[in-house]
Parts: sequence; C-alpha cells; structure tokens
Amino acid sequence: MESAFLAWLRQRLPADVRLRLGPGDDAAVLRLGDGAECVATVDVLTDRVDFDLRRDDPRRVGRKALAVNLSDLAAMAARPTAALIGLVLPREGGLRLAQELYEGLLPLADEFGVAIAGGDTNAWDGPLAVSITLLGETTSRGPLVRSGARAGDRILVTGAFGGSILGRHFDFQPRVAEALLLHARYELHAGIDVSDGLSLDLGRLCDESDCGAVLQAAHVPVHADALRLAAERDDGRSSLEHALSDGEDFELILAVPPVAAAQLLAERPLSVSLTDIGEFVAERGLWMEDAAGRRPLARRGWEHDFS
Amino acid sequence: MESAFLAWLRQRLPADVRLRLGPGDDAAVLRLGDGAECVATVDVLTDRVDFDLRRDDPRRVGRKALAVNLSDLAAMAARPTAALIGLVLPREGGLRLAQELYEGLLPLADEFGVAIAGGDTNAWDGPLAVSITLLGETTSRGPLVRSGARAGDRILVTGAFGGSILGRHFDFQPRVAEALLLHARYELHAGIDVSDGLSLDLGRLCDESDCGAVLQAAHVPVHADALRLAAERDDGRSSLEHALSDGEDFELILAVPPVAAAQLLAERPLSVSLTDIGEFVAERGLWMEDAAGRRPLARRGWEHDFS
Repeated sequence: MESAFLAWLRQRLPADVRLRLGPGDDAAVLRLGDGAECVATVDVLTDRVDFDLRRDDPRRVGRKALAVNLSDLAAMAARPTAALIGLVLPREGGLRLAQELYEGLLPLADEFGVAIAGGDTNAWDGPLAVSITLLGETTSRGPLVRSGARAGDRILVTGAFGGSILGRHFDFQPRVAEALLLHARYELHAGIDVSDGLSLDLGRLCDESDCGAVLQAAHVPVHADALRLAAERDDGRSSLEHALSDGEDFELILAVPPVAAAQLLAERPLSVSLTDIGEFVAERGLWMEDAAGRRPLARRGWEHDFS
Repeated sequence: MESAFLAWLRQRLPADVRLRLGPGDDAAVLRLGDGAECVATVDVLTDRVDFDLRRDDPRRVGRKALAVNLSDLAAMAARPTAALIGLVLPREGGLRLAQELYEGLLPLADEFGVAIAGGDTNAWDGPLAVSITLLGETTSRGPLVRSGARAGDRILVTGAFGGSILGRHFDFQPRVAEALLLHARYELHAGIDVSDGLSLDLGRLCDESDCGAVLQAAHVPVHADALRLAAERDDGRSSLEHALSDGEDFELILAVPPVAAAQLLAERPLSVSLTDIGEFVAERGLWMEDAAGRRPLARRGWEHDFS
C-alpha cells in the first residue's frame, strides 16, 4: 500500500513555487529566499523491520540510519551538510541505547562532513524508532533527479547487488563522493539509489522519466552475498533474482547518454565498479534480455505493507 | 534522564563552523554555503505519550505534530518554509490513519505557508509515531535565541498557562506571526516556547543565558483550563501550580529589556495577551515572589523518562 498512499499524497499536496522538487524523488530540493537551494530527506528506521536489536549492535543501527539518508543525497548528487536525529527509545535501557546509536553514527557523520544540528529524544513503552533528516546542498550542476532519463540512455550501476541481508545493509558505503564526481565530470540524465530493490527502484526511475528499461541479464553485477544467500536458502530463487529484488544495496542507478557512458566506462574514474546493464527505452515497462530473448521483468523489492 | 542525555550529547558533538546554533536551542541555525541561514527543528510524537489514538482523532494528532514544530520556529522568530513528514504506522488501518494525519496537518501547513517537501512512510507491528522536521528561515534580525537574556530584562509571556491537557494541547495556535512581529519591531534579547512547563522552560532559557529569574506569583496568567483542572482533580495542586508545570501551552517566554518591555506593554501590538511576569536576575536559580516574600521555585514539567 505504500505506493498507493504516495500516489494519493502527491495528488493531495498543493503545488508550491519554493519546491524545485517535492515528494517523489530521493530528496526534496527547496529554493530558499535568496536563491540558494537546500536538499532535504528523511528516513525512519524501526526495530524488527530495518534492524533487530535482539541481535544487532545499536552502533551498526545508528550508522545505518544515517547511511541510508546519505545514500538518498548521493542519488541527488548533493553534498550533505547537517542532520537532525529523532529518537523514540524504549524506556528500559534507553539511555545506553541512545548513546550507542550516536556512537555508531558520529564517525560516519564526521567522514561525510555532516554536522549534527539537533534532534529530539523521546521515550515510550514501544520499540526503537530512529528518524533522521539529512540536509544538503546542490552543486553548480544542480540536483540529479529521477525524471531525466531518455530513451537511448545507458543504464549504469555502481557496485553489485543482492544478499545485503547477510550484513552489507549495515556496512555499505553511501556513494556520495562517487555521485558528486560523476555529476561534475560527465553528463548524467537521472539517478536513484537502490534501497528497495534493483528492479523496483529502476522501475521508479522509469515512472518519473516516463520511459522503460531493458536489462541485459548477463551484465547485472551479482554480489557474492547473493550467490551465498541463494545457495544457503535453496528456495528456488537464483542469485540473479536476489540481485534484482533484495534491496538495501544502496548502490546508484544512473541514466547516462551513450557518448558519456562510453567515456565513463573507458576512463573508470571511480574505485568502485561501474557496469552498463542495459538501456532506457521509450516504451513504458521493464524487460530482461538474455540468449533466449526479451521477456517482461517484474518489479520486485521491499514495500511497506499497511492497509 | 532526558536532560542528562542531552548534556552528554552536547559534550560529545564536535564543533562545526556551519552551525550558527547547534543542539540546545528550540531549533538549529545552519549557515549554508552562500551565506543564507536555514533554521531546522525536529519533533517526534508518539501514541500514548503525546496523544492517545484510543480517543483522539488522528486529524488532531496530525495538526499537533506540525503545530509543535511551528511553535519551535516561533521561539526562534523564524519564518517556516517546508516540512518533512516521517510516519511509522501500525499495519492494521495504517492507510486510513496516514490519510487522516495528513488531512489534519495540511490546513495548518497552508495557514502557515509551509510546503510539504517530502517524507517517509513506514509500517510496523508497533504503535504510531510521527516525526516532523520543519525548516525555516531567519529574518534580517537573525534568530531569537535562548542565550541572550540579561539581568534586568523583563520576563514577558504570551497567553495563559496550565490545564492544556483538557484539549488545548491539540488546538493551540503557534505564535509564529506574533514572534515575527515582536522581533521585527522591538528589541528582544531571548525567547523560548513553553512545551514542557513554564518553570521548566524558563529554567532552560536561564541555563542558556547563564542567569536566573524571579517570578511574581500574582502576575502569572493562569488559564481557565488550569482552574478547571485544579478543581476537577482536587489533588492539592493549585491552579498556579498547574500553570507553572503542566506544559504544552506553546506560548512564548521572552526576555525583553525594560524600556522595550514598557513600550511593548503600552502599545500592545498583538491580539493575544502579553504579560510581564517578573525579571531576569544575575544569580542562577528560579524564585517566586508574593506578599510573603521570595522563595525558591522548583522546575517542574514534562521530561522523557528513560534509563
């Protein structure tokens, strides 16, 4: 129901000239009074959904809560500046938990130049929820949005996909520096980060760009974790299926015009891998191509379920 | 333990030149790259703590969640611009609940010129939590901070206090327009909004300003709700005690130099009442004065309890 709710909400919200970009992208872009632009995003992480305090170290939880927001700013090619931290703590053990969450997120904040600007710390008789709002600024190239992909653009991705549940969903490196570098040096048309699943987030980018995409099955970078998970679970889902739908990879999907894509792949300016996995097409829809031909690709991934 | 945690946190956070004002005031003030200032605050409201969905209309809950943030920006004399809404919904009935929350907050957003810039909507097997981050901008007079009160300043308050639990904690009017008008026309030294209790929040303002305060018992504006609550509860707490400690009044406490205070009280530029309730003094501490003399005043109010 999450996407149904978002559709309702976007229709319900009035237009506002101060929103260069409102709900529907990885972050909002606000025009401030004096022409400056402020990028803002919020993510709420909850116990037993995004982590499980019965087994996960609160420091890793704190790190993840900030990292997922950093990944949203990476998807906008925006520079992070400041964070506000809202905590809802269980009463019992809340003090130590709060301190450990901060101990986990502060080194990451330092690494990415994020000032902790403020927060709100609450306690209740419920489980932990962590809400982080991250603010940032666009560069002179403006924000990288979801809506700019065009038919003929190449689909480039950073890193590899699948099996993040084995631990990478805590320890991933948000692609902020990578996005800033690529956005500064190459012509990028659109971008999104993979939080909920490669096929699902690619589909979202296509929706906003009013286009479709064809993936080359053999080119999708499957993470070693996806291979391990497929082998361990033995539930009939292949490692490629894990790569397409597991989510929480927090890698980037970029729409890049062919000339820039060729240049980029020749120059390889990043330390992380960059792979061409297919092409954006005019017709709406997702397809997968392999030796057997082209077939429709279902969007699969994580969506919050409520009704 | 909330104040103990905040003390720990403020010590733990590194200084940052981009923070004109970091944690410890009603909102943070960030210097953006081009010299503009962005004001930001976050508040998380939770079921059974800040409201109770067993009896409270979700629309009133949504309104309150935005209104408490507006009150924080009022305390900074900042102009609100945009909000980000983080929801953690119970799975059952979450869709309707989310819609009703928005139906409650959107008219208030419209009234105060707040653009809904984005959000995050989650579901879990727990109760409702609403996290709102509000962004704003300072006027040419800069932010009104907690730390500027000086000995000799008059203590002025808007409105009346106590008994907000009878319903006013949902329906209060954030004093944004009032704060902007006063800050533009008069010399104000400091300000805070009363979210947790008149004596508690006055004490916080004194802490940040490194001063104390003497209240005149007879001058504290006691709300009719405080009289009603004292009568109904009959627990030995007077209506004045309710006024001093109930909290969620969301009125302003202002530190105003004597000449400006006299002018302000003569001109009465607001439609809401403004009352002189005492004086800031050099010695740290809070006191109450009446016909019987001066005695120490305990800080009482709402603090989140966790350990």
